[in-house]
Amino acid sequence: MNRRMVVYILGQMLNAEALLLLFPTAVSFLYREQGVAFAFLITIAATVAFGALCTFRRPQNRVIYAREGFAVVALSWLVLSAFGALPFWLTREIPSYVDCFFETVSGFTTTGASILTEVESLSRGLLFWRSFTHWVGGMGVLVFVMTVIPLGDNRSMHILRAEVPGPMVGKLVPRLKSTAKILYGIYIVMTAIEVVLLLFGGMDLYDSLVHSFGTAGTGGFSVKNASIGAYQSPYIEWVIAIFMLLFGINFNLYFFLLLGKIRTVLQSDELRCYLGIVGASIAVIAVNILPMYQKLGVAVRHAAFQVSSIITTTGYATVDFNGWPQLSRTILVVLMFFGACAGSTGGGLKIARLLLFFRTMRRDLRRMLHPHSVEVVMLDGKPVPEDTVAGANGFFLVYSAIALVTVLLISVDGFDFETNFTAMAACLNNIGPGLGMVGPTGNFSAFSDFSKLLLSFAMLIGRLEVFPMLLIFAPSVWRRR
Amino acid sequence: MNRRMVVYILGQMLNAEALLLLFPTAVSFLYREQGVAFAFLITIAATVAFGALCTFRRPQNRVIYAREGFAVVALSWLVLSAFGALPFWLTREIPSYVDCFFETVSGFTTTGASILTEVESLSRGLLFWRSFTHWVGGMGVLVFVMTVIPLGDNRSMHILRAEVPGPMVGKLVPRLKSTAKILYGIYIVMTAIEVVLLLFGGMDLYDSLVHSFGTAGTGGFSVKNASIGAYQSPYIEWVIAIFMLLFGINFNLYFFLLLGKIRTVLQSDELRCYLGIVGASIAVIAVNILPMYQKLGVAVRHAAFQVSSIITTTGYATVDFNGWPQLSRTILVVLMFFGACAGSTGGGLKIARLLLFFRTMRRDLRRMLHPHSVEVVMLDGKPVPEDTVAGANGFFLVYSAIALVTVLLISVDGFDFETNFTAMAACLNNIGPGLGMVGPTGNFSAFSDFSKLLLSFAMLIGRLEVFPMLLIFAPSVWRRR
Repeated sequence: MNRRMVVYILGQMLNAEALLLLFPTAVSFLYREQGVAFAFLITIAATVAFGALCTFRRPQNRVIYAREGFAVVALSWLVLSAFGALPFWLTREIPSYVDCFFETVSGFTTTGASILTEVESLSRGLLFWRSFTHWVGGMGVLVFVMTVIPLGDNRSMHILRAEVPGPMVGKLVPRLKSTAKILYGIYIVMTAIEVVLLLFGGMDLYDSLVHSFGTAGTGGFSVKNASIGAYQSPYIEWVIAIFMLLFGINFNLYFFLLLGKIRTVLQSDELRCYLGIVGASIAVIAVNILPMYQKLGVAVRHAAFQVSSIITTTGYATVDFNGWPQLSRTILVVLMFFGACAGSTGGGLKIARLLLFFRTMRRDLRRMLHPHSVEVVMLDGKPVPEDTVAGANGFFLVYSAIALVTVLLISVDGFDFETNFTAMAACLNNIGPGLGMVGPTGNFSAFSDFSKLLLSFAMLIGRLEVFPMLLIFAPSVWRRR
Repeated sequence: MNRRMVVYILGQMLNAEALLLLFPTAVSFLYREQGVAFAFLITIAATVAFGALCTFRRPQNRVIYAREGFAVVALSWLVLSAFGALPFWLTREIPSYVDCFFETVSGFTTTGASILTEVESLSRGLLFWRSFTHWVGGMGVLVFVMTVIPLGDNRSMHILRAEVPGPMVGKLVPRLKSTAKILYGIYIVMTAIEVVLLLFGGMDLYDSLVHSFGTAGTGGFSVKNASIGAYQSPYIEWVIAIFMLLFGINFNLYFFLLLGKIRTVLQSDELRCYLGIVGASIAVIAVNILPMYQKLGVAVRHAAFQVSSIITTTGYATVDFNGWPQLSRTILVVLMFFGACAGSTGGGLKIARLLLFFRTMRRDLRRMLHPHSVEVVMLDGKPVPEDTVAGANGFFLVYSAIALVTVLLISVDGFDFETNFTAMAACLNNIGPGLGMVGPTGNFSAFSDFSKLLLSFAMLIGRLEVFPMLLIFAPSVWRRR
């Protein structure tokens, strides 16, 4: 383990966070919230101080391997959240540090689960920071920092692989730095378009910004207690519904679109499957909830918004779907685990993995009937390497094990099964709201501190796709070479 | 597909069932239930008639491959249940045929889930048949019939592999017929011992027999509305708790015990893990429910009974664990999926598979840190072949997919999430009671016919470990060679 290099990169991360904290500081000043701005400045000072301490000595040995990659990613997300929670705590707007940490992890991991019973009374600066963490976390902070720290492409791949979700991570262009820049470019432009469209719908600039951050990162924090439902505007609901869906698509496809390779985009198995699941879910739910809303147009709109919010793991809501019929509720719980496309900002298992699972099953069943046949699993018309297939299966196993342990441990708090199960699902898959007590109109405040920390950990596990967070518990990761 | 041979074996199965039906017929006569005895005689006549039709022409080509094996197993269990349901329907003691079918599938698959709101009013003959199906289904009917039909050992293996649960199926002795006889011998002797012990506890012969059938097959049908709790006897509760645990152990271990190979038995990873999980669960639950029962002895007894009932997938109850604290309830839900040992009469995922899962995970995590290391998964000190590991992972995937689809489809009925989830878990894992509406004091009667058929199918899928029931939907299984 090259500890010095790990510490050095962590320091760079803290420096980057200090820069990011300047934005909410500016917002606080703008809204004349001096106390809040002061809290942000103290946080920046602390962050910079620790950052400087870590980057004081530049390590001579810059070699990093897989285990350094995992350690850097896991620790970075923990440290960023720990420091990012300070403004909430310093202003006493969230009195308990555990709650502050939960809220910040929920932000960075783009979960959107909240311990706040009442959002609207928070200061503008803090609400801005809360939503901004979604935007920062959606694309991955490390990938961005990696473009700044000079490391060989092969070295950075270890970090890219650990931070970018999906069963297969590829470079778009030969140089990794350029890949990261292209992805960030697409991200920024799409966010900007959404801001403009929301302004057209009559939202003010502040609200447009925070909701676009929440959409782009597929996070789900709102500045309204009733989430997007508060605006009572079908136009705004449709804009956000469509943008949630767009941010749930693999960003590589946008890159291909820019290159004019439309055929490649249309032939993507994952995209077709994603849109198919979304379409089918909207149709079934719309029919199922029609009696509640009378008009077909209204039912379709509510179904479309909630489906795209849940499958992309955003977590915005326009209605209290906790009161929907059981079939619709169950479909939403299933979609929680499906998640968005690989290489998007969404969480969950990812559609690409589901496709791999489904095709592996079909292959295995065929093999049972014809034991001597040789068949490979195909995706996008190309054969998938056997170790990718085995990797995805192994991932599912670990994922299920974590889900099980989480439900078991939070059940100590004594809430009902539906609440516990969907709280786990909502955190592990980075969605936000679940059903029951943690439904769209509920929140996570009633859980014990232990459960809150456990669920924070589940969010990090979900965002980093399990392995980095688990591996930091392996003693062999920390052993000196 | 050698259809003629499949039909021939099905016919033999029906003949075997006709023989088995003689027992409840005799019981009905003994209790002077002429109407019920008459219904059994009609059923026997119908079964024999169809059996004769199927076995009229002995097929010349007796060759069967994997696909014939799967088809024979799947169809046998369906046909046995369809005919076995007739007595309930003919006597009108269960008016709806769908309910009769559900109850019979629940019997043969050793699930023990019931649509009866009130058990004690049923006739003695029918209740005997209901419990007897557990005993017949526990050990597998086909394996027994295979010892009668002359087939080469290699041929029969296809059937053995499809019917006997667990990730690895082995022969105890070189000849398959002898293996089946040894296993049945152990089964009969252990059942007899339990009957005698229950008689000592003051149970009458009839009750001792039916409850021993239910224990041996890890089924769970009782003749009392309050299940084993009705006897109010700690002695009886302990006897049944211990025998449930014993029937949840791999029968191969009893064979080794008979051979005096005690060391082999003690070194079984699966046995140690099974006992460890049981012990830990009892301890945690006993502490958790202590405030409800005041005395430690009582709490331990209730915890021990319910844990061994659920982990062995039997489903007897001595208390309404639906009223227990959430932690204990969640532990029971988790144990539902764990299940008993491979090669026992219990259902669920099986401890051997859990061990494989856990060790595969550990191996995969190590591989991530040391990409070039070569490491195999070990069980009982021996390396496990990679295709067995992959097979277990694939099994888990299909299992999860079926669980998900089942919960989704039964949620159309509109019951709460806990009821739906645990109803699925209780059926798919062949347990019987779940939580909520299908808790120990509840039943499955309120579900729609569609859900009842779906849950019946889930029970069959669980008992036959997924693949036989799924493969009969593959067109290529039915294609003529």
